[in-house]
Amino acid sequence: MKLATLDDGTRDGQLAVVSRDLKIAHVADGIAPSLRAALDDWAFIAPQLDSLYRQLNEGKARRPFDFDPARCMAPLPRASECVVGAAFLHHHELERRAAGGELPAAWRETAQLARAASDGFVGPRQDLVLAREEWGIDFGAELALVSGDLPQGATADEAHGHIRLLLLANDITLQNLVADERALGLGLLRAKPATSFAPVAVTPDELGEAWRGGKVELPLRVVWNGNPVGTLEAGEDMAFNFPQLLAALAGSRRVTAGTIVGAGVVSNRATRRHTPGYASIAAQRWQEIVDGGEAVTPFMRFGDTVRIEMLDGNGKSLFGAIEQTLKAP
Amino acid sequence: MKLATLDDGTRDGQLAVVSRDLKIAHVADGIAPSLRAALDDWAFIAPQLDSLYRQLNEGKARRPFDFDPARCMAPLPRASECVVGAAFLHHHELERRAAGGELPAAWRETAQLARAASDGFVGPRQDLVLAREEWGIDFGAELALVSGDLPQGATADEAHGHIRLLLLANDITLQNLVADERALGLGLLRAKPATSFAPVAVTPDELGEAWRGGKVELPLRVVWNGNPVGTLEAGEDMAFNFPQLLAALAGSRRVTAGTIVGAGVVSNRATRRHTPGYASIAAQRWQEIVDGGEAVTPFMRFGDTVRIEMLDGNGKSLFGAIEQTLKAP
Repeated sequence: MKLATLDDGTRDGQLAVVSRDLKIAHVADGIAPSLRAALDDWAFIAPQLDSLYRQLNEGKARRPFDFDPARCMAPLPRASECVVGAAFLHHHELERRAAGGELPAAWRETAQLARAASDGFVGPRQDLVLAREEWGIDFGAELALVSGDLPQGATADEAHGHIRLLLLANDITLQNLVADERALGLGLLRAKPATSFAPVAVTPDELGEAWRGGKVELPLRVVWNGNPVGTLEAGEDMAFNFPQLLAALAGSRRVTAGTIVGAGVVSNRATRRHTPGYASIAAQRWQEIVDGGEAVTPFMRFGDTVRIEMLDGNGKSLFGAIEQTLKAP
Repeated sequence: MKLATLDDGTRDGQLAVVSRDLKIAHVADGIAPSLRAALDDWAFIAPQLDSLYRQLNEGKARRPFDFDPARCMAPLPRASECVVGAAFLHHHELERRAAGGELPAAWRETAQLARAASDGFVGPRQDLVLAREEWGIDFGAELALVSGDLPQGATADEAHGHIRLLLLANDITLQNLVADERALGLGLLRAKPATSFAPVAVTPDELGEAWRGGKVELPLRVVWNGNPVGTLEAGEDMAFNFPQLLAALAGSRRVTAGTIVGAGVVSNRATRRHTPGYASIAAQRWQEIVDGGEAVTPFMRFGDTVRIEMLDGNGKSLFGAIEQTLKAP
């Protein structure tokens, strides 16, 4: 099923079920007030949402309305916890190569995770509001999972069955703040402002054949100021799948329902048949440095727009699009 | 006022008001179901809680009951976000000196913050459940604030008025996992399992004169296996006060209500008049290395107990005590 959160003025928003084609929706707050509440009690709530979802798709729901992504908050406006994994190693290899180094072996052996902000998430059509262009403002097209409860030490196999939802995100990085923060060794904080999310969260079964081996085998489109800059395959070059990322988090701690685990910015290696482009400006700049010694593509400027979308097996939008404009406060 | 969260089987628990002397309590779920809900709507809810608090202290509340910390969850079982600052520089100086280095100047110039897990918090009398002694399991006595909403770029003066509550925490570190994770440069994740909290959250006004200059000028007692190992002053040697720590977080992002900002493990410099001892085993080990070249105090072992408590101006427990036993799963 497909779920969205409507902005009703509350912090967690109002839960809605959205039709498969993203055309109509139905409030679900008679079942659970918010997606957060639904995740808190998923085994009881999910079958009821699923029933409403089927009715909606069959044209039998009582009070459907036109679905408007502009009314949406992030599907989960605040999470229990949020971490981002480094599943697309090509992205990190490029960064190291551009700096004249190599990716440490540990990154290939186990899934590396970093904590991210767990609140203040931005809706799919809300502006990106950031104070300074000099920060090196960069988009980052990324998939993420929403987890159920998972005990400490859970394996990837166990984790697989606890992936409740998948999300599409714009994981913003202030690239010019990264080096200084990394030197301090405390992880990125100022360099990672709020993440934005596509309007609709989807259950893995919604992907059908495209949910394979714990990966999402579907194309991802990134458009910057109207120019298609990325035509990537989200299931390729993924060194760790979603269950492995979730199990890595559970390695030393209990995971609670409503935890978001991002897979990291999608990055494909170019092949003879596929020139993937990029899902973040930094990746393009690193490639430019590797190829020609110098980064030429600038970071985002005020007024810039970014559009991030994933297409399903029928070429239709799976999560709805993220469409944002960068603005000063 | 003093607030606690009773374990009623829900994820956010049941809000209760606790008398100043921690002897009796009164459920407050007629006012707000949980502390989280109270923080979401603080301006409206806090005066009602305050009124109940006054009635309780005056013996006029309707259905008081004996307050039992063993029934408590962490006051805020899951937060909007959680970060920990490095306010007690002596702690970090010791670490660097033990490793033959020096604290970088940046740590003295601005408050450094690291993200921490925002969920899965442990109650004051719950066991510490961790799988391996070899991880170097270490307690860490720490104060933290709970914030209201704060806009991006808020100053320390603005932040001061948005400190809703103060908490006492046991910030656990798996010290033997720190070096490897730090080398990866992504911040600590596996090395930082769930944090525990004392039973009661207090509003800053509850501290009276002891809430001074954005610091808590009160003694902190740490007892390990029945031996007093730390008799610290939480307002001394604090390079950044609570408003400064909160403003540091707001530097590049909006802060949302229910965010926890820890001040870092309390650490005092020894003086002629005061031998403070330690609030974390690591600090003692670093001191041993600096003094004699070798760490002799071992980390925690299964069955070990730790007790952390802060005394108010009258020598009474301010937050109630954290009393925990380390156990294997």
